[in-house]
Amino acid sequence: MKLLNIGSIAFDDVKTPYGEIKLAMGGSAVYASLSSSKFVSTAILGVVGNDFSEENFAILKRNGIDTSGIEVVSGDSFHWSGVYNDLNRAETIKTDLNVFADFNPRLSENQKKCPYVFLGNIDPILQKSVLEQINNDAIVGCDTMNYWIMSKRRDLENVINNIDLLFINEDELKMLTEQSNIFQAAENILKGRLKYLIIKRGEYGSILYGKDLLFFVPVYPIKEVIDPTGAGDSFAGAFMGYIAKMDNLNSETMKKAMLYATILASYNIQSFSVNELDRVQYPEIDRRHSELLRMIIL
Amino acid sequence: MKLLNIGSIAFDDVKTPYGEIKLAMGGSAVYASLSSSKFVSTAILGVVGNDFSEENFAILKRNGIDTSGIEVVSGDSFHWSGVYNDLNRAETIKTDLNVFADFNPRLSENQKKCPYVFLGNIDPILQKSVLEQINNDAIVGCDTMNYWIMSKRRDLENVINNIDLLFINEDELKMLTEQSNIFQAAENILKGRLKYLIIKRGEYGSILYGKDLLFFVPVYPIKEVIDPTGAGDSFAGAFMGYIAKMDNLNSETMKKAMLYATILASYNIQSFSVNELDRVQYPEIDRRHSELLRMIIL
Repeated sequence: MKLLNIGSIAFDDVKTPYGEIKLAMGGSAVYASLSSSKFVSTAILGVVGNDFSEENFAILKRNGIDTSGIEVVSGDSFHWSGVYNDLNRAETIKTDLNVFADFNPRLSENQKKCPYVFLGNIDPILQKSVLEQINNDAIVGCDTMNYWIMSKRRDLENVINNIDLLFINEDELKMLTEQSNIFQAAENILKGRLKYLIIKRGEYGSILYGKDLLFFVPVYPIKEVIDPTGAGDSFAGAFMGYIAKMDNLNSETMKKAMLYATILASYNIQSFSVNELDRVQYPEIDRRHSELLRMIIL
Repeated sequence: MKLLNIGSIAFDDVKTPYGEIKLAMGGSAVYASLSSSKFVSTAILGVVGNDFSEENFAILKRNGIDTSGIEVVSGDSFHWSGVYNDLNRAETIKTDLNVFADFNPRLSENQKKCPYVFLGNIDPILQKSVLEQINNDAIVGCDTMNYWIMSKRRDLENVINNIDLLFINEDELKMLTEQSNIFQAAENILKGRLKYLIIKRGEYGSILYGKDLLFFVPVYPIKEVIDPTGAGDSFAGAFMGYIAKMDNLNSETMKKAMLYATILASYNIQSFSVNELDRVQYPEIDRRHSELLRMIIL
């Protein structure tokens, strides 16, 4: 097991201009794991209620994901309801934490030794608890959101000081640094252990920012975006999966990870829930990757 | 003379978070010409009042621009006042057309034979009048804005059917095609003579869209944007200048034109008015071009 993804495992109700789904599998750890499993052996860690079915487990298992880190407790799973009127922004209708309210990640001895760890978008206090359990030399990527920046800034800053890669939306980066120019913002935040920022810009692609590296990737163009839920998680999952597979952080690996992350996110938004992430395999992934390359090189 | 730029020649009052200027030289034809003149012999065509000074002419002339197409008439030059509270969007305070109100472009025999023509953002009726005067086999690029889409849609569509390259903002493309997805919008508009769309996305870069070509370029990162006025015009000017220099429309030329256009626009926004466009020369332009290349290739 090379990569451990920790985060939410959820059921989502989602409404977009293309339709709606109820109680479909989602959550940051699920999207990240289905995406990273295309690249590297992946384990998922999170909590679910007893409404999480054998079929849900089967989707993860048939993608080779180690589900032994899913704790099943009595009650209902995390439940998120959201609407996209504009496909670039979700409006949360309701969040029921349910069994997630008491989630306290406890890693097995094996999981503690995992060389790559992804902390999905959850409470920074839980992220910190994972950081305290894993090996010091693990490569750690972390995602977050505006909610935690506003409500738990100090805890989040503490986490950011102890990770290697931060995945963050452009607007959240501005909020976190109180800077309106993202290049200035990136420069301000990159210090200490933090080696790379991956700035997510929705339909405008993403930026990789390192100490001596700046790299831009556009999105792979999709004419019909069905459901953007999980785009950021599948992006981060593929990124972490690719670097775990290559097992280094050099700039060539990081740039290629940006492309694969973009490709997996592009599949994800073409269907509701995890349908496309579950379906898509090689060599289809590599074909789209080659197409994207042709759109950015001379 | 390889390229003829037609458009406004203006005095601008501009206020940005970095300061303000009064009655500084501007206008679509001026920005485009100072930019294109770095690549190819350029002529400018437009109208000014007798407030347009010898010093204003001198700035154009010292950049090798043929100013014989500037008609000087009695009265004041076009005068625009704008404020940028957000550096991504200008708010127009006042537009005084002045002598521009009676502008009726009349091309000399030499100008009519110019092989490359850029129609800056002016009334599509004036753009059409130029199209009727030039050679049929001239390569024509055209810029426009939301104002003309709303007020003179039919005239504008007529112009678009008779040009080779359209420069258009992302939001204006959506407005023009009544499509919310820009890739769908681009597909809808590309027909007849029109060969390429250049979609401008402000701080998110630009997209080149052709029949078998899709190419993305990010902006060159600028930490201190002083004044965005003329960014689109200097972008289009460099683009037209580069393709006129190479004298072909193949995809390699078009892609390289996107990069040079990005570079000239990046200089332009680092100063008020045309100060940086006037100052910057080779090899400085090529150095920044190489830097940008490193940010997009693997």
